[in-house]
Amino acid sequence: MSAHLTPVLARMDDQLPQALERLKTLLRIPSVSTDPAFKADCDAAADWLVNDVASIGFDVSKRPTPGHPMVVGHAEGPGPHLMFYGHYDVQPVDPIELWDNDPFDPQIEDTPKGKVIRGRGTSDDKGQLMTFVEACRAWKHVHGSLPAKISLFFEGEEESGSSSLIPFLKENKEELTADITLICDTGLFDDNTPAITTTLRGLLGEEIVITGPDKDLHSGMYGGPAINPIRVLSRIIAALHDDDGRITVPGFYDDVPELTNSQKAQWENLGFDAKGFLADVDLTTPAGEAGRSVLEMIWARPTCEVNGITGGYTGDGFKTVLPSEARAKISFRLVGQQDPHKIREAFRKMVLDMLPPDCTVEFHDHGASQASVMSTQNPMFEAARLALTDEWPNAAAFIGGGGSIPIAGHFKEILGLDSMLIGFGRDDDLIHSPNEKYSLDSFHKGMRSWARILDSLSQQG
Amino acid sequence: MSAHLTPVLARMDDQLPQALERLKTLLRIPSVSTDPAFKADCDAAADWLVNDVASIGFDVSKRPTPGHPMVVGHAEGPGPHLMFYGHYDVQPVDPIELWDNDPFDPQIEDTPKGKVIRGRGTSDDKGQLMTFVEACRAWKHVHGSLPAKISLFFEGEEESGSSSLIPFLKENKEELTADITLICDTGLFDDNTPAITTTLRGLLGEEIVITGPDKDLHSGMYGGPAINPIRVLSRIIAALHDDDGRITVPGFYDDVPELTNSQKAQWENLGFDAKGFLADVDLTTPAGEAGRSVLEMIWARPTCEVNGITGGYTGDGFKTVLPSEARAKISFRLVGQQDPHKIREAFRKMVLDMLPPDCTVEFHDHGASQASVMSTQNPMFEAARLALTDEWPNAAAFIGGGGSIPIAGHFKEILGLDSMLIGFGRDDDLIHSPNEKYSLDSFHKGMRSWARILDSLSQQG
Repeated sequence: MSAHLTPVLARMDDQLPQALERLKTLLRIPSVSTDPAFKADCDAAADWLVNDVASIGFDVSKRPTPGHPMVVGHAEGPGPHLMFYGHYDVQPVDPIELWDNDPFDPQIEDTPKGKVIRGRGTSDDKGQLMTFVEACRAWKHVHGSLPAKISLFFEGEEESGSSSLIPFLKENKEELTADITLICDTGLFDDNTPAITTTLRGLLGEEIVITGPDKDLHSGMYGGPAINPIRVLSRIIAALHDDDGRITVPGFYDDVPELTNSQKAQWENLGFDAKGFLADVDLTTPAGEAGRSVLEMIWARPTCEVNGITGGYTGDGFKTVLPSEARAKISFRLVGQQDPHKIREAFRKMVLDMLPPDCTVEFHDHGASQASVMSTQNPMFEAARLALTDEWPNAAAFIGGGGSIPIAGHFKEILGLDSMLIGFGRDDDLIHSPNEKYSLDSFHKGMRSWARILDSLSQQG
Repeated sequence: MSAHLTPVLARMDDQLPQALERLKTLLRIPSVSTDPAFKADCDAAADWLVNDVASIGFDVSKRPTPGHPMVVGHAEGPGPHLMFYGHYDVQPVDPIELWDNDPFDPQIEDTPKGKVIRGRGTSDDKGQLMTFVEACRAWKHVHGSLPAKISLFFEGEEESGSSSLIPFLKENKEELTADITLICDTGLFDDNTPAITTTLRGLLGEEIVITGPDKDLHSGMYGGPAINPIRVLSRIIAALHDDDGRITVPGFYDDVPELTNSQKAQWENLGFDAKGFLADVDLTTPAGEAGRSVLEMIWARPTCEVNGITGGYTGDGFKTVLPSEARAKISFRLVGQQDPHKIREAFRKMVLDMLPPDCTVEFHDHGASQASVMSTQNPMFEAARLALTDEWPNAAAFIGGGGSIPIAGHFKEILGLDSMLIGFGRDDDLIHSPNEKYSLDSFHKGMRSWARILDSLSQQG
């Protein structure tokens, strides 16, 4: 921690009311990206951001795309080059009748867990995005310049499929360079424990359609000699896991790393309430691989799940039909260096090898993305972790993410950049739901956290 | 064969045109039982039958029920007491535009396989029913009396659920006695081979609903530690059969008899085209129990089938949902003395034993009926078989039925009567479909067959 930091933190504490007013102004713009009725509002939100960060001294512009515009800005500085990502678009507000107040007229509320600001986009992602902008503003105000070279990259289509993102990254690859990207669209581990998400699971989606007889049959007529594709499908699904919950696709675990001892120790320190996590959904017993903790199962282990199955008669009552086909949607969450294409091939071969006579199978590809694994050996990760630890009651941890955050993968694949995923959202923020909120504590400590991280990373240059 | 038979056969050959006219008159009455718009027509068909069989000398009346009326008639005779069952109601005709002619204006047509009469109800069941009535008429005309005591029992709700049948049988148990019932609602084995169906499989229907987490989950958040009910259901279904296709429910085969040598020999003599039967539905390989013939699989072996399965997301595209529940409809075809209630209990216990922690199961009962197994030791069966053999090119056989014919079960359970299921329908009769037909050959040889059977059974009295 340098001497430069203290006055910056003081400035932010002092200016919190003004920062909240700025956030409210941005929140009042209903930038719902998925609904064409709000196209002008998305544009207005981009314009507001351009004006706001230009006032801090960024060389910034709105960049048109076939969808909603991107906002890209740059500011010079002495340290390493950091690129910050956030998105200014928000989810639709339906069902509007479940909101206690106008979703686009944000209000400060007292709650048993402290003050919050309530409204669409407060947590996802306008509130989070502004924590970084406010840290830059304060630093510039106090010192006249930023402590690092900083690029800002704001998207307006995150909630509607990011269709312009990949082409834009490819076309602007030269401009969008940095030493590392900072993505503020994740959460705290818990109210008192900040986190840097360093791994995200990849995802492989497959649909299989098994056909037996060429039409639906009557089980009185054909029951016995006719093959039943639901039974064939069930045998295949049952065979995908062994009795220890391990996935049996040949070669599946080839590129799955074990946790390092330091990672294991960090996760054990988190005091994760596995019982409570399961009890939230009425479960008591972890159902994954034997001998793994719940956190490991979610953050560090691959899975194979059936997300949907259908075949035969599924309406009310009963029909003694022998169906012609049965289908299932199956997905794999991937970790480490697992290659989704290699696993897709191995899975398909396994299914084909299990097919009895007279059955055929159709495979449908529902996408494939590799796990995101950040190089935490890069000293910027540990520097950011210590900076976060200075701000919050508990030590920050490198954690995993069970799902996917596509932007991190795109930055890696297209721009060759690692990302630090740091955010201050909480599990009860109701993102994508009525009555979304963001804690003022997250907003305030969030901007202070970024100032500390800028300070710390600027010494890594 | 007695001397009484020859003039009866001659009379029927001579009067075939008149018999066809009578059938046409009955066919012109659109007695669609499931549609209230045809209630008066159902009544009219019952009236027509009452008048027609009264003209032969039966003491007959129309019996009201909460639905359509029954027709019950009796005629004295010297031999054993036979009760004949048929139904005068027919299926709806939709889609009417697929009929080549008015379904209720029956016409005689030439086809490559001989003359047919085309129209709704020709085969199912008015044409079949009238074969027996015509045999009685001719016998009475030639000899002045019938060769056996005969009761007629005609139903008008067979195509719409027979809701009045069980109460009617129970209320009229004293009246509806006989030595055996004759049911004319089945078919020939093939064009040249008549058959008596002596076994019908029973049916047990179960639906199981397996619940894991109390709501649908996101597989990024919970994939790994959360139990997936589709996987649990698939394991249960996969475990219901062993690698030889035998059903693994404990005690399942306890009451399954092996074929007698004579039955086996009769079935082998039928020259059944198993390859063609499977090829009709694009299959090549019998998928049932190892070491059993296809006919055995359908007629003499029990099955366990999945008739429907559903769980999770089954629409277009993909959702990474971990579903809260998964459900399957499972049915068992039963043979011999298998007790559906005992098997239901054993099945449910097996499912419960396989349930992992945190899963619950709901069972829904979709009905249970035991197999119908006729006592072919009763010499009337062999007598009828030989009589049929006298009429047709190939020897008649005792065969099984893969499905269920509920009336046979009701006669057994409520009246304590065995049934001989004898009919002259053919696989291509298009029953329940547009352009239903009945072969004139079936009609003519059918009535001759009944005369032969009456002759033969009258000597059993």
